[in-house]
Amino acid sequence: MSEKRVFVFNPGPAALPLPVLKQVQDEMLNFKGTGMSILEVSHRSREFEDVLNSAVERIKRLLGLDERFYIMFLQGGASLQFSMIPMNCVESGKPVAYVDTGYWATKAIKEAQNIVDNVEVTASSKDKNYTYIPKKISLDKDFSYLHITANNTIKGTQWWEFPKTGNIPLVADMSSDIFSRVFDPNPFGVIYAGAQKNAGPAGVTIVIIRKDMVERVPQHLPTMLKYSTFTESNSLYNTPPCFAVYVVELVTKWLEETIGGIAKMEEINRQKAHLLYDYIDSQDFYKNPVQPEDRSWMNVIFSLPSSELEDRFIKEATQEGLIGLKGHRSVGGCRASLYNAVSLEAVRVLVDFMKEFARRNG
Amino acid sequence: MSEKRVFVFNPGPAALPLPVLKQVQDEMLNFKGTGMSILEVSHRSREFEDVLNSAVERIKRLLGLDERFYIMFLQGGASLQFSMIPMNCVESGKPVAYVDTGYWATKAIKEAQNIVDNVEVTASSKDKNYTYIPKKISLDKDFSYLHITANNTIKGTQWWEFPKTGNIPLVADMSSDIFSRVFDPNPFGVIYAGAQKNAGPAGVTIVIIRKDMVERVPQHLPTMLKYSTFTESNSLYNTPPCFAVYVVELVTKWLEETIGGIAKMEEINRQKAHLLYDYIDSQDFYKNPVQPEDRSWMNVIFSLPSSELEDRFIKEATQEGLIGLKGHRSVGGCRASLYNAVSLEAVRVLVDFMKEFARRNG
Repeated sequence: MSEKRVFVFNPGPAALPLPVLKQVQDEMLNFKGTGMSILEVSHRSREFEDVLNSAVERIKRLLGLDERFYIMFLQGGASLQFSMIPMNCVESGKPVAYVDTGYWATKAIKEAQNIVDNVEVTASSKDKNYTYIPKKISLDKDFSYLHITANNTIKGTQWWEFPKTGNIPLVADMSSDIFSRVFDPNPFGVIYAGAQKNAGPAGVTIVIIRKDMVERVPQHLPTMLKYSTFTESNSLYNTPPCFAVYVVELVTKWLEETIGGIAKMEEINRQKAHLLYDYIDSQDFYKNPVQPEDRSWMNVIFSLPSSELEDRFIKEATQEGLIGLKGHRSVGGCRASLYNAVSLEAVRVLVDFMKEFARRNG
Repeated sequence: MSEKRVFVFNPGPAALPLPVLKQVQDEMLNFKGTGMSILEVSHRSREFEDVLNSAVERIKRLLGLDERFYIMFLQGGASLQFSMIPMNCVESGKPVAYVDTGYWATKAIKEAQNIVDNVEVTASSKDKNYTYIPKKISLDKDFSYLHITANNTIKGTQWWEFPKTGNIPLVADMSSDIFSRVFDPNPFGVIYAGAQKNAGPAGVTIVIIRKDMVERVPQHLPTMLKYSTFTESNSLYNTPPCFAVYVVELVTKWLEETIGGIAKMEEINRQKAHLLYDYIDSQDFYKNPVQPEDRSWMNVIFSLPSSELEDRFIKEATQEGLIGLKGHRSVGGCRASLYNAVSLEAVRVLVDFMKEFARRNG
């Protein structure tokens, strides 16, 4: 009974692959024959540097990043990146551009406004409560960068075609969809992702930066807020969040060696999302408000006919071992997060439960 | 053989109590009957909030902190605190005071100089290569605070009597000696500690702040760099480093329930340190350069008659399962870190090895 695992649909921290958790468990007292836990190993040891370098190489291979890109393991989550991006990436005198796709994107804009004078919101879907991704991005100036939120966990939208920005670097918060689908990384100056959705546990932020962006970093910044501090030290300026980096290495290894790469992962994610959206579209009890072509494969939001039914749905689902289906407190309703480690089987069990619940309560 | 554990004298990340590691291992796939790993549990769940609140309460009890003190779990290590302290804690127009006891203290000063104009180094032990703790601290102005580094991991010194500062708040980096000895917290405005030495794994920084210091936080700071963001949200503004907080809770539980509190821990640490220093003082092969009354109980540094012998000592010690005895790269020599989780037995084994090595090579 104590070994019974549930189906985790948490929005983050989220499901992790069971083989990864088992390996963490197996070597908790003795990491790779060192006689120490990974929690005790020095970050300056060869064993830990091997872990960190392997994570870097796996991320580069998975995303098809060439030698222009650095991988950094930082702390503070995407929320600290909301400030570090404008601190580090503004070219003198040039404004910065943001697309507002709700909640996290809005927070990123607010933090940028605290750092730089000239923040332009060049597109927004606020007019329809963020239920779509803006298609027309006005880039009529020489912006320092264009910031987007690649997947919107709360609003359930996702960018399926990234904006064409010419020479303006794209900067993207990919916290909730990194490693979930194939994309061309070349237009991106910076990609950042809190690991706790698709890449590992909470406590590490993967930041990918192109070399030309590192050259923009101002000298006067505090050492720990400068990207160059971490590109120059291979994320080892001070003690990194070693355990979280270790789990990221295991998750990226699982993606490469068990799943078979991002294209395979994308295909599984497509099946998972279609299974759930196809069911939602086939009936009237559950409703998804998002414009169909902008729907997120990672976070499927849906409502029931009443908030009482939603409460009952979440309660009964929890009793059945389907965890984390409550919508974000800012929007209510329900949400199933279908990150990489959520299996197709888990989605099948969820859809079966939804059908059965609708039959009883419809 | 794969279960054979070594004796860990690492300077940080460092030894953790074996019962803590075993509990982490036991519940890695199923945290407190949730059917999820602690790595998958939502930071907004009751289960995680219970962990975080328990860690807060245990820290307050262990250190005897009254209701004026907040406990925060931040990221970025002590190195980010070097900047956050001056960002948050300056009173308008008042200079800040620092004591320079080497390396980390020097880094803290450098980061402060990047933030505020008026940084005064009111005492320093640089004249004798930081082998002592300055006793005379000139506090002839109304400083915003006085910053000290309570224990100097690299130089092997420790403050045994904290400076009397009157109305000037003390701010201390206690990364390497928090929870190791009893002290009066009342003169302290801020205490901060990267967890990876005495309190848990790398990836979380414990920051203790007195309410009057929170009132100094400027409004204009980036949200993630303001202490008030975290005092107002109980460290849950964004996703905290959940796993690291969980291990801190287990370590503080071990301190309270297995060791029996800080006074008991201090007595064990006294025995450990005396065992090693008494041996070093009894012979001429190993030498400790620190002024005796300022010696650290946490980090015992020592040299051998030649660097060749030091290399051989470290190599042979490693072969015997005594890990992490190399001195910091900036000073060379040897160092044994005797943090809380290092047992008296481990120190006995080390001293026996040192005796035997000296006999063979002396």
